[in-house]
Amino acid sequence: MSVMWMSELSQRSGVPVPTVKFYLREKLLQSGVATGATRAVYDESHVDRLRLIRALVDVGGMSLDRVRAVIAAVDDTGRDLHEVLASAHEELSPVPEREPSAESRDRVARLVRTRRWKVTPQGRHSEALAAALDTLEEAGQGLPDDALTTYADAAALVAKGEVGSMSGASREGAATYAVLGTVLAEPVLLTLRRLAHENLSSRRFGRASARS
Amino acid sequence: MSVMWMSELSQRSGVPVPTVKFYLREKLLQSGVATGATRAVYDESHVDRLRLIRALVDVGGMSLDRVRAVIAAVDDTGRDLHEVLASAHEELSPVPEREPSAESRDRVARLVRTRRWKVTPQGRHSEALAAALDTLEEAGQGLPDDALTTYADAAALVAKGEVGSMSGASREGAATYAVLGTVLAEPVLLTLRRLAHENLSSRRFGRASARS
Repeated sequence: MSVMWMSELSQRSGVPVPTVKFYLREKLLQSGVATGATRAVYDESHVDRLRLIRALVDVGGMSLDRVRAVIAAVDDTGRDLHEVLASAHEELSPVPEREPSAESRDRVARLVRTRRWKVTPQGRHSEALAAALDTLEEAGQGLPDDALTTYADAAALVAKGEVGSMSGASREGAATYAVLGTVLAEPVLLTLRRLAHENLSSRRFGRASARS
Repeated sequence: MSVMWMSELSQRSGVPVPTVKFYLREKLLQSGVATGATRAVYDESHVDRLRLIRALVDVGGMSLDRVRAVIAAVDDTGRDLHEVLASAHEELSPVPEREPSAESRDRVARLVRTRRWKVTPQGRHSEALAAALDTLEEAGQGLPDDALTTYADAAALVAKGEVGSMSGASREGAATYAVLGTVLAEPVLLTLRRLAHENLSSRRFGRASARS
């Protein structure tokens, strides 16, 4: 395994040297191997750790305390990969601005039960989903059950591919991917939905397109 | 068809009276039927129009000029429903902060061609998609082709149900739904994806869950 100085570590990870030093002091980044009184060398594991920290901070929008908790989960080999991923995912769903209605909570609980999804009951994602259902309801666009089922099917389809691709990764790599892949891929999914809308609307409702 | 005074129109639509008057002056809202020198009555068509305006402004984040363009499309029966929906959808995708790479644009064009999607070439949604692919690439999380295919399948699945449910609606109702359904349902799709992740990760990587 090749080693590198601080300057190369900074370059490789895209994290400025003062910030790398800050992470070292905060013990978020493991120490390098000392090669003298004031110098140390680093390796790929440091690059990976810095990428994870940046993903959690920049993309996940997490506080340093939260970052510390995720890294503790990565480092504690007594915790399984699912716990690591759950920890990295925890803050990615918004906290609902107010409490979801009992109806929407029931609806989410029913969906989870019907699909036998193994998820934290009334966890952060469930609560955010219930709140999103309330918002639609209040806008007079309540989601019928079959539409919710279709959404759940689509979500399961997407998640299957995503979680599958984590299997081969290191704990650190999987946690990084869990944050980056989840957040950064969202616009891909949402813009594809708009393109698919445009296509179907054009085919179903477009007179001009029927001629072409 | 029952008629109503301004006060009831305001109450039914949730739009304050001064704002209703502003929309009347701006000719975004059609006039009521005059019942005297200073009074007029309104009907359901006014409630629907106000709901559309509020959807475009509050949820779609559109300028008044843009709202005027959508309403012109709704009112111009020479334009088919697809044009109305495309107009309502137009600004819902973010304008990429910088130009997408040629590679990502090609990738989007290829996807559209392979699926025979009838969409505006290099339209707003395509550009936003290409930019989102660039962002993933730069974060070292480039989306493989099979993952993009899975996302497109999921998007097509979701859009099919959504566009189908517009068939029976009025032009105004369909435009309102196009904006509200598209924007407000996004958190539903995204939180379901997280729940599906949690479930799969728990099943594949969770030791504790294997015991239960």
